[in-house]
Amino acid sequence: MSEFEPKNPDYAQAVRDGFGRQPFMAHLGARLTAIEPGRVEIRLPYRDEVGQNHGFFHGGAIGAIADVSGGFAGFSLMGKGGSVLTVEYKINIVAPGLGEELIGRGEVIRVGGTLIITEARLYVLREGCESLCAIALQTLRGKQTGREVAF
Amino acid sequence: MSEFEPKNPDYAQAVRDGFGRQPFMAHLGARLTAIEPGRVEIRLPYRDEVGQNHGFFHGGAIGAIADVSGGFAGFSLMGKGGSVLTVEYKINIVAPGLGEELIGRGEVIRVGGTLIITEARLYVLREGCESLCAIALQTLRGKQTGREVAF
Amino acid sequence: MSEFEPKNPDYAQAVRDGFGRQPFMAHLGARLTAIEPGRVEIRLPYRDEVGQNHGFFHGGAIGAIADVSGGFAGFSLMGKGGSVLTVEYKINIVAPGLGEELIGRGEVIRVGGTLIITEARLYVLREGCESLCAIALQTLRGKQTGREVAF
Amino acid sequence: MSEFEPKNPDYAQAVRDGFGRQPFMAHLGARLTAIEPGRVEIRLPYRDEVGQNHGFFHGGAIGAIADVSGGFAGFSLMGKGGSVLTVEYKINIVAPGLGEELIGRGEVIRVGGTLIITEARLYVLREGCESLCAIALQTLRGKQTGREVAF
Repeated sequence: MSEFEPKNPDYAQAVRDGFGRQPFMAHLGARLTAIEPGRVEIRLPYRDEVGQNHGFFHGGAIGAIADVSGGFAGFSLMGKGGSVLTVEYKINIVAPGLGEELIGRGEVIRVGGTLIITEARLYVLREGCESLCAIALQTLRGKQTGREVAF
Repeated sequence: MSEFEPKNPDYAQAVRDGFGRQPFMAHLGARLTAIEPGRVEIRLPYRDEVGQNHGFFHGGAIGAIADVSGGFAGFSLMGKGGSVLTVEYKINIVAPGLGEELIGRGEVIRVGGTLIITEARLYVLREGCESLCAIALQTLRGKQTGREVAF
Repeated sequence: MSEFEPKNPDYAQAVRDGFGRQPFMAHLGARLTAIEPGRVEIRLPYRDEVGQNHGFFHGGAIGAIADVSGGFAGFSLMGKGGSVLTVEYKINIVAPGLGEELIGRGEVIRVGGTLIITEARLYVLREGCESLCAIALQTLRGKQTGREVAF
Repeated sequence: MSEFEPKNPDYAQAVRDGFGRQPFMAHLGARLTAIEPGRVEIRLPYRDEVGQNHGFFHGGAIGAIADVSGGFAGFSLMGKGGSVLTVEYKINIVAPGLGEELIGRGEVIRVGGTLIITEARLYVLREGCESLCAIALQTLRGKQTGREVAF
């Protein structure tokens, strides 16, 4: 259960709409599989197009899923008409990304006046078993209809 | 001109071969456009598939190009048969990625016993003008045919 | 309760000894207040010497406590005679460090062949109430009596 | 020569005043040794109090000098009465910090509407020879007399 209060009662629809407007996510084949206030889950099935040369998920694909998992977790707390931009993120690949599916779970660590800090944990699902493959820390900037967001 | 001495006289071919074996790079549409010892340049033309919902390069695509720009810069210094793995990277998106082409320039900062540190600067080319859009710091681990690399 | 098995049965004494050999920690006034396999807690009481110009804990002091909290968490899992080196860390200051005491809680995220990944959460204690002020991700390199550690 | 135009004609004095108000810097023994618009240099002589248990500069001291080197580089571009806060930084220790003096050189990479991105390179001076020991990327938030800074 989330500790955050959404500002937009339709936050889940806003997240789905935002995700649907990103051609890059469709191009990778990523799906949004869970939404709560301050948390989202995004899944990416394995196929060669998101792999690297050893049959693992490509580090760049892992980074991209980390970025959007944190990004939409933060976005779920914005008011109607708001948006977020990634300021920066840092990701550690802690184990090879070998599995049928990559699962990104982003959650908000803290919401400030203009900045939102998130953490994403990335898992690979292999033969029914999840294991941690990456962890990321991210800084987002929230904007509320053109101006800096005031939470 | 590079300050690094390549261990593999065929480093440029090794980098081209390694890049060519990554389906993810082909899927994004990225091209390898320059190789020196300890430095590479990778270019990604804009198209909707690598964009986000405002017509800019997607942060995840920018992160992926940063990761491989640093990664192949490091790989260019490995001996024959060597490989590198991304341990971690951190990227700051310093300006919106708006342009016809994204240019990643990775360079090695330092080569240690098992770890290689790289920096990548990402530029967008817009109407003939390059501007910085992101900067990344990365840690790679080098492996030389199964064992840790000893430089 | 920790999920990690210590390799050194005297891990707690090894951590205390290692901490005691760091003049920088004494200079700051930091104390080691809890040790488990893969976890430590370090506390730094406020005084002007570790503050910045607004009466808060200095960001550099917060970073130093984050570094050692993660570092000794990793060190607690090393075998007898082992040591760790910080490869890199990233820290987000998520709230002003205002309080009587800074509390760093480091824990190991993953132990690999030569690298250990840790997370540290930093809290300030103010009028009996703890609140998160920073979060850090760190990469350590373990060495076992001169050679790379093999876990 | 700096590419940045200072907003405060007395930027150098403002940096010296700001540095002088940080008891933590005095406690470490750090000195401000160069100031330009968007750049500063800070030096820390070695002594046991800033060392770790192998006679090297402590990683936490290196991190603290990186933080302030980037921070005052950013601060030099603020208008009169402005201030900066560290949002986050990431530092790679690329070589052991062995030397008589640690030299931090911070420079601004980019100034945005509310955020300033800096890079700091840390060198150790040993027998007259400088060598790179760490590199850091940092995000600052600028405030101009209470409100967000508008550059």
